Amino acid sequence: GWKCRRQIFARAVGAIEKESAMAEKPGTFLRDSEGEPSGTNSVRARFEKMIRKAQDDVCVAVEAVDGHGFREDVWSRPGGGGGISRVLQDGNVWEKAGVNVSVVYGNMPPEAYRAAKPVNSPDNGSRLGSIPFFAAGISSVMHPKNPFAPTVHFNYRYFETDAPKDVEGAPRQWWFGGGTDLTPSYVFEEDVKHFHMVQKQACDKFDPSFYPRFKNWCDDYFFIKHRGERRGLGGIFFDDLNENDQEMLLAFSTECTNSVIPAYIPIVEKRKDMPFTERHKSWQQLRRGRYVEFNLVYDRGTTFGLKTGGRIESILMSLPLTARWEYDHQPVEGSEEWKLLDACINPKEWLQP
Amino acid sequence: GWKCRRQIFARAVGAIEKESAMAEKPGTFLRDSEGEPSGTNSVRARFEKMIRKAQDDVCVAVEAVDGHGFREDVWSRPGGGGGISRVLQDGNVWEKAGVNVSVVYGNMPPEAYRAAKPVNSPDNGSRLGSIPFFAAGISSVMHPKNPFAPTVHFNYRYFETDAPKDVEGAPRQWWFGGGTDLTPSYVFEEDVKHFHMVQKQACDKFDPSFYPRFKNWCDDYFFIKHRGERRGLGGIFFDDLNENDQEMLLAFSTECTNSVIPAYIPIVEKRKDMPFTERHKSWQQLRRGRYVEFNLVYDRGTTFGLKTGGRIESILMSLPLTARWEYDHQPVEGSEEWKLLDACINPKEWLQP
Repeated sequence: GWKCRRQIFARAVGAIEKESAMAEKPGTFLRDSEGEPSGTNSVRARFEKMIRKAQDDVCVAVEAVDGHGFREDVWSRPGGGGGISRVLQDGNVWEKAGVNVSVVYGNMPPEAYRAAKPVNSPDNGSRLGSIPFFAAGISSVMHPKNPFAPTVHFNYRYFETDAPKDVEGAPRQWWFGGGTDLTPSYVFEEDVKHFHMVQKQACDKFDPSFYPRFKNWCDDYFFIKHRGERRGLGGIFFDDLNENDQEMLLAFSTECTNSVIPAYIPIVEKRKDMPFTERHKSWQQLRRGRYVEFNLVYDRGTTFGLKTGGRIESILMSLPLTARWEYDHQPVEGSEEWKLLDACINPKEWLQP
Repeated sequence: GWKCRRQIFARAVGAIEKESAMAEKPGTFLRDSEGEPSGTNSVRARFEKMIRKAQDDVCVAVEAVDGHGFREDVWSRPGGGGGISRVLQDGNVWEKAGVNVSVVYGNMPPEAYRAAKPVNSPDNGSRLGSIPFFAAGISSVMHPKNPFAPTVHFNYRYFETDAPKDVEGAPRQWWFGGGTDLTPSYVFEEDVKHFHMVQKQACDKFDPSFYPRFKNWCDDYFFIKHRGERRGLGGIFFDDLNENDQEMLLAFSTECTNSVIPAYIPIVEKRKDMPFTERHKSWQQLRRGRYVEFNLVYDRGTTFGLKTGGRIESILMSLPLTARWEYDHQPVEGSEEWKLLDACINPKEWLQP
């Protein structure tokens, strides 16, 4: 399903209307005109509310540690939808931290709907016209200054299509996606274990198969193929999740989103003031270069956003403030830099006894 | 032709065998076993000789200005082909300068051969098996330290397929590609005019239509679509050139390659010691970020190389040593930074009276 759908999307969605700045945050980015699906009890409405609260909570937690505040940009699109981008740049603790929420309305080509729908559901696909879709998500990347303090990324999103009007009985479709992952430049095992443990606890509240499955999915997804290494030390990742109960998955996404602060902030507090040398800084900058490689070459959210005319500054907020590429850099075997690289090449089970 | 062919290539060429380091440079990277096409008078052989001499010449010229020397890596592949990568990193004048030559043997899927061949030539394509191809090229990017000294990129390449053995009369095919372009952080009109004038002079020796055609092609190619701006101030670019006489195009590629030194080195000599401030450096770093965006998201050589298992360190040598991404940076209208950006958004005819 997803790979095919995502590719069809990117090819066919085409340019979304240009966004424009808004002076004030609206209560909701949902269209007024929507009937039943956007009622305040709809999954759309509750998901939007959840991610907007999470954006506030994460920003408050980060500002409390950093001392600097986030800049906020609010934007909307003429046909409905919009978002709030918050960035803290060159703070005391973070080099760059961005937390975005966005709500997007678009039209999906019929092939993408067909790729998404469950097998055996009514189709008669040749008669389908393009199908309106809705997507809402929170996404965030935070790059600290101190090379011993890790970068974190998280993203939780909800998609929904309308029921096609031209085919009797063809269903509305929906799915959830997301994940939280950690990208340190140096391995502190206790930090990585803490981070993974919080992810596991969030998962275990819903399904014991979630953590092992989404941990592996994360290792597979954040793979820089041309390097044969992962971007970082993983966490959880899932996409196209719709085989469980919708209410359960909304609650699960909420739990994961709310786990970001306890998973990440204590690690930064422990590492942010550790003394470091030029060597540590330079290695951090090289790993930031790898982060850029992954995001620009492989990350679906980024490449999809760039191709479909999303808000560029919000999409590329994930890039670090600074990065570095040295020709043929090879860490000395056994060094601290080598240990990180080894863990990126050979993903570990951090929670094994 | 080319777009289709390149895409089919990237999908189907698949992983090329892994390269290994060589202690010494061979006299040629061409296969011994080859008969007629690799005779010392073949276009393949003369093209390889030309790019290897050009690599030497450019490195000598750069070392004379910089004072530091290039590091050299020689590599080969078990099935034939290989290359020489030269890098000067953290020199006196250049932050990073790389000059590569490579010779690649591979197998092209029949669709790519069909997309490449002239209309109306014998085909009977359904019987074609995969077709051996040969590619040789020189490619180089040089990023100076001083923000007033521009980055240059050049790349000249020659492709050839074997005549398919299984279809009587199906022709061998060949084509040339390449270009030279300038990426300053600040506009010095005299520098840009000089650079374009040298390109025009090289072109005019062969065909008066070449410069205007290849200048526009360059502006179109180095376009960062998601930004709506070009990477730099252009030069010349061409691909899939085979409608002219083969000897003429070999001579033209040679002339272009040999024009790199007179087009670029005098500009660097004029700018390398100009005093600059933090503001200039920071703007240079932002433009380097754009360079990374273009190369990782759009550049065909880079994305093709990453997907087909080319030598990663040689491919990514084009990335700057350091780069920077600031959220929503907007130069003040009328400032020197704005003038550069304006010229990247609205390409100019530098040689108009």
